[in-house]
Amino acid sequence: MKKIFFTPGPSQLYPTVPGHIKRSLENNISSISHRSDTFHAIFEDSVSSFKKLYSIPKENYVFFLSSATECMERIIENLVVKKSLHFVNGSFSNLFFSISASLGIDAHKIEEPMGSGFNIENAKVPPGIELACFTQNETSTGVATPLKDIYHFKKINPNTVIALDIVSCAPYPDVDFSIIDCVFFSVQKGFGLPAGLGILVIKPDVLERLKYVKKKKTTLGSYHTFENLLKYYQKSETPETPNVFYIYLFGQICKDFQKVGLHKIRKDTENKSQLIYDLEKNKSFSPFVQEDRLRSKTTIVLNVKNGSKSLILSLKKKGLVVGGGYRELKEKQIRIANFPAHSITDVKKLLFAIQSFRN
Amino acid sequence: MKKIFFTPGPSQLYPTVPGHIKRSLENNISSISHRSDTFHAIFEDSVSSFKKLYSIPKENYVFFLSSATECMERIIENLVVKKSLHFVNGSFSNLFFSISASLGIDAHKIEEPMGSGFNIENAKVPPGIELACFTQNETSTGVATPLKDIYHFKKINPNTVIALDIVSCAPYPDVDFSIIDCVFFSVQKGFGLPAGLGILVIKPDVLERLKYVKKKKTTLGSYHTFENLLKYYQKSETPETPNVFYIYLFGQICKDFQKVGLHKIRKDTENKSQLIYDLEKNKSFSPFVQEDRLRSKTTIVLNVKNGSKSLILSLKKKGLVVGGGYRELKEKQIRIANFPAHSITDVKKLLFAIQSFRN
Repeated sequence: MKKIFFTPGPSQLYPTVPGHIKRSLENNISSISHRSDTFHAIFEDSVSSFKKLYSIPKENYVFFLSSATECMERIIENLVVKKSLHFVNGSFSNLFFSISASLGIDAHKIEEPMGSGFNIENAKVPPGIELACFTQNETSTGVATPLKDIYHFKKINPNTVIALDIVSCAPYPDVDFSIIDCVFFSVQKGFGLPAGLGILVIKPDVLERLKYVKKKKTTLGSYHTFENLLKYYQKSETPETPNVFYIYLFGQICKDFQKVGLHKIRKDTENKSQLIYDLEKNKSFSPFVQEDRLRSKTTIVLNVKNGSKSLILSLKKKGLVVGGGYRELKEKQIRIANFPAHSITDVKKLLFAIQSFRN
Repeated sequence: MKKIFFTPGPSQLYPTVPGHIKRSLENNISSISHRSDTFHAIFEDSVSSFKKLYSIPKENYVFFLSSATECMERIIENLVVKKSLHFVNGSFSNLFFSISASLGIDAHKIEEPMGSGFNIENAKVPPGIELACFTQNETSTGVATPLKDIYHFKKINPNTVIALDIVSCAPYPDVDFSIIDCVFFSVQKGFGLPAGLGILVIKPDVLERLKYVKKKKTTLGSYHTFENLLKYYQKSETPETPNVFYIYLFGQICKDFQKVGLHKIRKDTENKSQLIYDLEKNKSFSPFVQEDRLRSKTTIVLNVKNGSKSLILSLKKKGLVVGGGYRELKEKQIRIANFPAHSITDVKKLLFAIQSFRN
């Protein structure tokens, strides 16, 4: 039976991925040296396709790391000496907080309950915050923080570096990469690839901070310091032998997305998400996120009146894999990923199966 | 034209890899959740197949990281408070040294020229060394340090933790995993997989040291501390979303190697390496490593009398890709990988082409 994965990550592969994998095997992509001109060309092609797709300024740097979690660690190691601030309303925003704390940083939280958003405009920012971290799309709860609130925060705190996690929404949110200092995600969500690659986009002026941080800290890490990543980026390489195969695949997907057009992908995402949220017309379902304007378009979390366990199982038997609620909400909710890999036909098939379900 | 990659890494894929990739796509391996029972089964299967193949004690831990370079960083972060020692005779042993130094550790070297080995028995070990690092097979020069010398070092320095890099030789060296505390490699060399996965094997008693290190250091890292890796290992998971696809492929390759038999793989490696070193009968070639007992069986470095550039190009035109010498020796040497993916027929084809070459 053909399965469709609506899980919020790892998720459904984008339909062109198997073809790209086949061609990459034919072309020995996984065997070529990461110090060769062939690799330089792949690296440059991936970076430029990605920048073109996502309207990223030419001068921004794109670092290839191994996961979004690694991006969090490297941002803290390289950009924070003493204090970071985290807007926490779920498990992944809290992960960023924990990573900072475990790296010995005085990490502060502004916390809201799961399913809620923030009053960013009136947030009480403790003095001396060097880095503020936002999780644009909280995968655990389906809350999407409006970008304009984050831009506003940067406007009133111009000297605070902003890190933005767009793990489970990219390339949906129309991020202004000339405003946000560090933006990161992993490729196994919206980009429909296997897991194992984290993408970190950095504004060049942020790296001016490194001089200061280097003076204040014993270490900023080793092979993946921003200084070292930059040194290799400038020769279209990475410090270690990277995942050449996935860097190649990432570039191919960016080009596929360009062909469809990001505008259309975004429009489709909105249309599909509307169909999914319309499930609330059926009294068995209600969106976990109360405020309509905060509801994620890419990871949709619904409370299921009589519990989600038997629904999830019944869908699974039909080859339709959806996520449960996160951790303690596992058997009370369903989480549905709505990524570019999910066609409107797939979504309608899922919704039909959900509507037909009788407990 | 079908190419054969004799480059020392990334290198030729093991011939079964494309089939495993095809089946993993059919079975949606890249879409399954890394917190699901399906993943737990993959994780356990990979770990147990690897342990069985390589005669690793059941109680040792196997951590999946993103590269061998990351393994170096995590070993230093977690196990060293003040002083490390590095036996340096090439670029990769020196990388381990640099990583330690950049993490703020007082890193010491015992250095020998490129192409030479160590007098480990009489090595002057500075006082207070917590970790000694050996690169069993120096990829840059083709020097292989005898395991018995490393065991001897451990015997006379029982309180020093030993880290052993077997990046470009695994699974050839018959490492005793009950003696060596930390052993690591990446999968794009002898295991014939794409790059993007580092494997770190740890003896359980080493982790007793963590209590002491935690007391002495501000931080041991964040998501990839050994404590956190262990916590997830015990539930057959990793802290972050891992490269599920490659973890699956790694398990499949371990099983393929088991079917052939590691004894036979090792015997074949020796026979093939003998054929390659026999090139010295042709006066244009001489092994870079003078001492026969130190010559690597898996990365063979040969000086080429009239320079290697035109030879490498001529081989490339025949679809035979070999490495140049490392860095400044690039145009003076060839480096030939001799991994399980390289059949004796492939090696003979290469040797015939080399012998037929006229400058």
